[in-house]
Amino acid sequence: MIESSGQRGAVVLMTRVRFARNIVKHPFPGWAKESQRREILAECLPAVAKLPQMKKGFSLETDTLSDLEKQILHERHLISRELMAVKGGSGIVISRDQSFVVMINEEDHLRIQVLRGGFNFRRVWNTINAIDSSLEEDLDYAYMPKLGYLTACPTNVGTAMRASAMMHLPALVVANQMERVVRAVNQLGIAVRGLFGEGSDASGSIFQISNQTTLGESEEEIIKRLTSVLNTIIEQEINAREKILETEPNRIFDKIGRAYGILQNGHLISSGESMNLLSLVRLGVDFQVFPEEIRPAVDRLIIDCQPGHIQYRAGKSIDSEERDSFRSTLLRSEFEKVAKPSFSIGDAQ
Amino acid sequence: MIESSGQRGAVVLMTRVRFARNIVKHPFPGWAKESQRREILAECLPAVAKLPQMKKGFSLETDTLSDLEKQILHERHLISRELMAVKGGSGIVISRDQSFVVMINEEDHLRIQVLRGGFNFRRVWNTINAIDSSLEEDLDYAYMPKLGYLTACPTNVGTAMRASAMMHLPALVVANQMERVVRAVNQLGIAVRGLFGEGSDASGSIFQISNQTTLGESEEEIIKRLTSVLNTIIEQEINAREKILETEPNRIFDKIGRAYGILQNGHLISSGESMNLLSLVRLGVDFQVFPEEIRPAVDRLIIDCQPGHIQYRAGKSIDSEERDSFRSTLLRSEFEKVAKPSFSIGDAQ
Repeated sequence: MIESSGQRGAVVLMTRVRFARNIVKHPFPGWAKESQRREILAECLPAVAKLPQMKKGFSLETDTLSDLEKQILHERHLISRELMAVKGGSGIVISRDQSFVVMINEEDHLRIQVLRGGFNFRRVWNTINAIDSSLEEDLDYAYMPKLGYLTACPTNVGTAMRASAMMHLPALVVANQMERVVRAVNQLGIAVRGLFGEGSDASGSIFQISNQTTLGESEEEIIKRLTSVLNTIIEQEINAREKILETEPNRIFDKIGRAYGILQNGHLISSGESMNLLSLVRLGVDFQVFPEEIRPAVDRLIIDCQPGHIQYRAGKSIDSEERDSFRSTLLRSEFEKVAKPSFSIGDAQ
Repeated sequence: MIESSGQRGAVVLMTRVRFARNIVKHPFPGWAKESQRREILAECLPAVAKLPQMKKGFSLETDTLSDLEKQILHERHLISRELMAVKGGSGIVISRDQSFVVMINEEDHLRIQVLRGGFNFRRVWNTINAIDSSLEEDLDYAYMPKLGYLTACPTNVGTAMRASAMMHLPALVVANQMERVVRAVNQLGIAVRGLFGEGSDASGSIFQISNQTTLGESEEEIIKRLTSVLNTIIEQEINAREKILETEPNRIFDKIGRAYGILQNGHLISSGESMNLLSLVRLGVDFQVFPEEIRPAVDRLIIDCQPGHIQYRAGKSIDSEERDSFRSTLLRSEFEKVAKPSFSIGDAQ
């Protein structure tokens, strides 16, 4: 049975809020010497690591990580490209369940981030707020009543908060409506980016939607406005799905069917293509042509098919073509067990 | 097990020889009035129809066929586009097994054609020769000892014979070597065309290779020369297959696997795409990654997926998108029973 409207929740893959914080009497990381960054790290790392939310988590200096390990953390949306590039005196603390992470000496002294699957701003915001308050007991935040939190980049001053949702919008992409959506959303002070933030492409029809401004509004107001925009986008995605199912079901069944066929039988699948194929299978799950039980595996593969994860799994550094081969072997074995999609409406036969 | 050299025969899909013949005291069809064409038809049709090879065959005037029926005969390589266009006074006689066909009042009074699966010039030539001799007993052929058979177009004068082979050259296509092959072959007076002759494209990596000249050589010499060129092309195709299997097996396994996956799961497959997908599956049969038993079905589908055949099967005239849907339904049901390809060498895993 094809079902498009019952899956509103599935459109939002992940909700994320991050706070930028700096502590007084230290230069911003970009202006600090390595010795100064080490002082900041020595002050912040223990304060973060001892938080109850970080129990049994990981706490380390970025320098101790290999390039591959950094890439894997980046592919899991835990650390930024910027942190990967910092030489000396930066650190990272990650909770055991990887839902809470603090980067130290990235662009700001502290970048606190909470992320959670699904559409869940209230819960994410409550968690990060509690963490922020606990940290404030130990660390002296740079804060001015008139401006709010001070940050290295003026675009973050104020709430220093970026709230974002990762959205899966395949029908809007297929219907060529994303450009219109992006334009409308931008006018409301909301940014739309690809999967890995600014400048990245929207492989897999996955987009990050986030607030652009941090001044002149409270955190609650920002989240309320963003939530309302997200709800509108969900509505439009659902409408686009219904319209495709109604007017040209074969076009979307063809895309979903081919994606499944290629995942089951390909021998060279790139990272970008795997995202697009998995994205279409995920849409198939939303349409109930694949069983709901495969959704977690599909969402996991969207992460596991990234280049760093593939190399980690291969146990060695391998070139792009070897990765494509290794990735397709993984995908074939995962999809071998998945039954054929069953499209029951609109099919010509 | 992957096997590339044991399948030389499979490279040639079909062998064909056609003779152009005209009878004395009648203008060529292009210069004849309809009443004159009717006279020619009245003389030729019974002579052809009574041949023992035509027992239980079909004999009719082209006008009595619907456009769809003409298209189907064309898709089976039995009649030409030219014959489809003639208004009044043309005819066609087809043997029961469709291996022997005579067009009356196409470009010449008679176009006699024998076609047979595989690489079989000797047998095809013996058959057409016997038929031609029988016909000559009844019909007075326009023939001059110095020039040979006279034909409407000077390029056919002499033997008035065109011998051709339909070749499946997927590895030469994948390896981008077809252009080089065509150039070399042209210099030997041999033409390379797409599936449906002059100006048609080479969907499915299928090419027609035929003699370009009809003067200055006997039929036997032409066939000998053509056979030698075909053997060289087969050699090059086999070499290209071996090279791909040796140097980049995953590239070709990827193409074959995807083709199978799309045939099993697509919902909108065009005629051209179906040819390319089936061509790759056929290569898979040559490589023994699919069982030999499916070869006849694949070869049949290469014909059955043409637009005319699809409409005939649908029982009505349907537009291009409906055909693509109908075709993919046919392909899904045919490939449902075909087991996954088993690639056992060169695979990364």
